[in-house]
Amino acid sequence: MNYAMIFRILGWMLVFEAGFMAPSAIVAAIYREASVIWLLVSMGIVTAAGLLLGAVSRPCHHRIYAREGAVICALIWFLYSIFGALPFKLSGHIPDMFDAVFETASGFTTTGASILSDVEALPHWLLFWRSFTHWVGGMGILVFVMAIIPLASGGSAMYLMKAESPGPSVKKMVPKASQTAGLLYKMYIFLTVLQLLFLVLGRMPLFDALCITFGTAGTGGFSVLNSGCATYTIFQQVVITVFMILFGTNFSVFYLIMMGRIREVPKVSEAMTYYGIIGAAVALMTINIRGSYTSIGLAIKDAAFQVGSIITTTGFSTTDFNIWPAFSKWILILLMFVGACAGSTGGGIKVSRIQVVFKAIMKELDSVIHPNDVRKIRYDGKVLDHAVLRGINVFITAYFVVFGLSVLLVSVDNFGLETNFSAVAATLNNIGPGLGGVGPASNFSGYGAFSTCVLIFDMIAGRLEILPVLILLSPHTWAEGSVLRGKHVRRSREAENDLMMSGSLEMELG
Amino acid sequence: MNYAMIFRILGWMLVFEAGFMAPSAIVAAIYREASVIWLLVSMGIVTAAGLLLGAVSRPCHHRIYAREGAVICALIWFLYSIFGALPFKLSGHIPDMFDAVFETASGFTTTGASILSDVEALPHWLLFWRSFTHWVGGMGILVFVMAIIPLASGGSAMYLMKAESPGPSVKKMVPKASQTAGLLYKMYIFLTVLQLLFLVLGRMPLFDALCITFGTAGTGGFSVLNSGCATYTIFQQVVITVFMILFGTNFSVFYLIMMGRIREVPKVSEAMTYYGIIGAAVALMTINIRGSYTSIGLAIKDAAFQVGSIITTTGFSTTDFNIWPAFSKWILILLMFVGACAGSTGGGIKVSRIQVVFKAIMKELDSVIHPNDVRKIRYDGKVLDHAVLRGINVFITAYFVVFGLSVLLVSVDNFGLETNFSAVAATLNNIGPGLGGVGPASNFSGYGAFSTCVLIFDMIAGRLEILPVLILLSPHTWAEGSVLRGKHVRRSREAENDLMMSGSLEMELG
Repeated sequence: MNYAMIFRILGWMLVFEAGFMAPSAIVAAIYREASVIWLLVSMGIVTAAGLLLGAVSRPCHHRIYAREGAVICALIWFLYSIFGALPFKLSGHIPDMFDAVFETASGFTTTGASILSDVEALPHWLLFWRSFTHWVGGMGILVFVMAIIPLASGGSAMYLMKAESPGPSVKKMVPKASQTAGLLYKMYIFLTVLQLLFLVLGRMPLFDALCITFGTAGTGGFSVLNSGCATYTIFQQVVITVFMILFGTNFSVFYLIMMGRIREVPKVSEAMTYYGIIGAAVALMTINIRGSYTSIGLAIKDAAFQVGSIITTTGFSTTDFNIWPAFSKWILILLMFVGACAGSTGGGIKVSRIQVVFKAIMKELDSVIHPNDVRKIRYDGKVLDHAVLRGINVFITAYFVVFGLSVLLVSVDNFGLETNFSAVAATLNNIGPGLGGVGPASNFSGYGAFSTCVLIFDMIAGRLEILPVLILLSPHTWAEGSVLRGKHVRRSREAENDLMMSGSLEMELG
Repeated sequence: MNYAMIFRILGWMLVFEAGFMAPSAIVAAIYREASVIWLLVSMGIVTAAGLLLGAVSRPCHHRIYAREGAVICALIWFLYSIFGALPFKLSGHIPDMFDAVFETASGFTTTGASILSDVEALPHWLLFWRSFTHWVGGMGILVFVMAIIPLASGGSAMYLMKAESPGPSVKKMVPKASQTAGLLYKMYIFLTVLQLLFLVLGRMPLFDALCITFGTAGTGGFSVLNSGCATYTIFQQVVITVFMILFGTNFSVFYLIMMGRIREVPKVSEAMTYYGIIGAAVALMTINIRGSYTSIGLAIKDAAFQVGSIITTTGFSTTDFNIWPAFSKWILILLMFVGACAGSTGGGIKVSRIQVVFKAIMKELDSVIHPNDVRKIRYDGKVLDHAVLRGINVFITAYFVVFGLSVLLVSVDNFGLETNFSAVAATLNNIGPGLGGVGPASNFSGYGAFSTCVLIFDMIAGRLEILPVLILLSPHTWAEGSVLRGKHVRRSREAENDLMMSGSLEMELG
C-alpha cells in the first residue's frame, strides 16, 4: 500500500475542498451576510488539515493501483462530508454534528435527503454551499480535480476514476484518463449553463435558478424553498423535468452528438432503454393518478416530473407522492432501484446493469431449452466479458446485502416498515425523499445518531457503488502492505490494469 | 418436445392426486361427515381427467430432457392446485374458484397462506385434505411418485427431480434418481412419525397432531384452530419449534446420521450456518421483545417459535408478530428471504445460496486487493463449478425481478406498502402469513381475483425456484419442437445431462 501517495492525494483534495467553498463567499458578499465568517473559518480549517496531510507524505514513487484507488476514493468522500459540514455546524444552523455531516454527505453524494424542516431559514451563502456540493459531487470530486492536475502518474490515475465513476466500468472516451475527465466536465458545464439560461428566461430568480440547476445537474435534489419545486411555474417545472432526464442520460450520447455522429445515438441501447422505461412509467402512472387531476396534461406533467426525478435519483418533488395510490408508489420504488444510466451523474443500480441481468436470465432459460447452443451475452454488439458479468452479479448481490442490513440497523429507531425501507432505498440509491415518515413532505431529522451514521454510510456506499467502501472496511486491504511494493507484483498489477480496461463495457467511441 | 411423454406423465400424476385424496375419506368415515360426497365426486373428476390425458398419449420413446422436465413440473403444480381445489369449491366451503385454487396452491406449495377467516367451520375431512397437501407437497409430488413408479426412462427421471427439488441443484445421494427419491421419503416419513408421537405424548388430540405434523413436515403452516398455535401447551409449542427446524435442515445431515457417519455432520456447512443464523436471530429478537414478557423464558420460546417458523418458511404463529417492534419485524423479513437449507422441505433463497453469494463478494474484494492471486470459490471443500455460480446469480436476480413485478401487480388493489410487500414475500418464499393486512391475525381474502392469481403464480414459482415456471412461459420453449427429436441433438443433450450432474453442489455422500 502506497500510504505516502494516499496522504498526498487526500491532502491535495482537502485543499481543493476549501477552494470549492470560495464561490459561497461571493454569494455572501452580494447578499451582505455577516455569518459568512464561519465559512471563512471553515475554509481555514480545511486548508490547514489538507496541508498537514500533504506535508507528512514523502512518496518514493507515484504509482497507485486498484486497491489504493478504492481506498483513496472512499476516504475522500468521508472526509469531504465531515469537513464540508463545518459551515453548517459552526454557523449554528445545524447544531448536531451528525445531522450536519448527514446534510453534507447528502449534498456531495447528490442524494438530496435533508434533515432541515425550514430551509428558507438558512442564509444565502449556506444554501448556495449546500446546492453547490451537488454540482461538485455529481460528476465526481476526484474526476474534477484530475481534469486540472495530475494526481498520480500516468495510467494509474485511471484507478481513481474507476473507483468514483458510476456504472459497470469507466468508458475511456479518449486514451488518457485526464482527457476523458476534462471532456466529461466540458459537457457537464455546457448542459449546466444551458439549463440556467432556460430557467432565467423562464423568469426564475437567478439565485433559485443557480441552486436548482446545481441540484438538477448533479441529480441531487436539494431545493431552496420549503415547498420544494411545487411553486415554480409549469414552464420552469418542464425545464427541470427535461434536464433531469438529460443529466441521467449516458454521457456517451452527448459525446456522439458533440462529434457530429448523431446517427449512432440510437445504438446506445442503455439510453434508449432508459427513455423507454421513463415513457412506460409516465404512461402507467398517468392512468393511475388521473382521477385526482382536473386535466390530463397536469397529470402527465406531475407524473413525468416524479418519474424523471426518481429514476435519475434527483429527488425534487412538485407534489407529495406519499399520498398517491399504491400502484404509482411501487412504480417509484422500482425506479429508485433501476436508477439512471451508467456514465451519467445519477445513482441506483443503473439501466445497463438491469439490461445485462435480463439478458443473463434469458440466456439461462435458453441453455435449458436449447442445451446444445453455446451463446454469449452481447451488449451493444460486443460479447460481454465474463469478468464484467461477474462484477455486475457481485455488485447487485452486495447491494441487496447492504440494503437488508441497513434497514435492520435503522429499525432500532422503531419507525414503520415503509419509512425504514424507503429511507434506506432513498439514501443507498442517492435519491433523497422516501415514503412514509421520510416522504417529500417530511425529512430525515427523526432518526437518531446511530441511524444517521448508517444512512451516511449508505449514501457514500451508493454513490461509489459499494465496492470501494467495502474495500476500505476489509481487513485484507490493510494486511501485508509492504509485500506489495516488489517489482514482480508491480508488473503483474500492470497486466491486471490492462485486463480491467479490456473487460469494461467500453463502447467504440474513440 | 416429447409431448406424448408430457401428457402421459401428467395423466399418471392426476390419477395419483385422486389417490392422495383417499385418506381424507377415511377421516370423513370416522367423523361420520356426509359432505364427504363432494370429495368422492372430486376424486372421480380428477381420475377421469388423468385417464383421459393418459389415453391421448402415444410416446414413441420414453426419454425426456431438461426442457420437458421443467415444463412437466410447472404444469403439474398448476394442475394439482386447480384439481385439488375441487373439494373446497364443490362442498361450498370456499365459494370463489380463485380463492379455492389459492388455498390449494398454498397447501401443495407448503406456503400456508389462507383466505379463510374461520378454519374451524370446515369439516374434519376437508381440514385433513388441506393439511395433507402440505405433507405431499413438502418433499415433492413428482419425487413421491418417482419413488413408487418409473415415470421416465433411466437417467432422464433426474430432470423431473431437478426441476422440483429445492436448492442450487439436486444432490444424488445414491446413483439412481428413484433410489434417492425413496431414501428421502423414508427419512421424511420417519421424522413425521417421530413428531406425531411427541405431540400425542404431549396430549395433543390425534387429529390436531396429524394436521400440525403435516404442516410442520412440509414446512407448510396451515393450522386447524383459528388461534393458530397460540393455544397449544408450551411443551407442544417446543416440539413444533424443534421439528420445524429439523425439517428445514439439509436432509444430508439425516442421511449421514442414518449411515452412522455422525462425525461428518459438522462438515455440512449449510446446516451449521443455518443453525448459526437461527441462534443469532433468536438472541437479537429476545433482547428486542423481552420488555413485553413476564419471563425471559417465554420471550425465548416465542422468539424461537417465530424464527423457526419463518426461516423454515413454515408460517405457524403463536403470537401476532405484526405488533412486534420494527427491529424484530425486519429480522423476520430478512429470514423470509434467507429461507431454509437446500435439500430440505423449506423455501426461500436457501442458506447455501446466501453462503455462496457472500463468498463471491469476498472473492471480488480480494481480486482488487490482491489482483495477482487467482482464487476459486470453494464450498464444503470442493471448488464451485462456474455453471453453479452462474445459476445461483441468475436465480437471485430472477427472484428479485419476479418479486418487484409481483408487488407492482398486486398494488392495483391499493393496499399499503407493508401489506403488498409482505404478501409477495410470504407467497414467493412459501411462508404464509405476512405483515400488515396479511399478518398472522388476518388473511389473504382481501385481494381481488387478479391479485389472487398473481399470488398463486408466486407460490408455485417460489416452490419450483422460478426457472421451471419461466421456462413454461417462455415462447422459445414451444418453438421448433420437432427439430429436437433428431439423434444428433439427443446425443448432445445426454452430454449436457452429465454436465449438469457434475456441476451440482454435490457432497461426497455415497
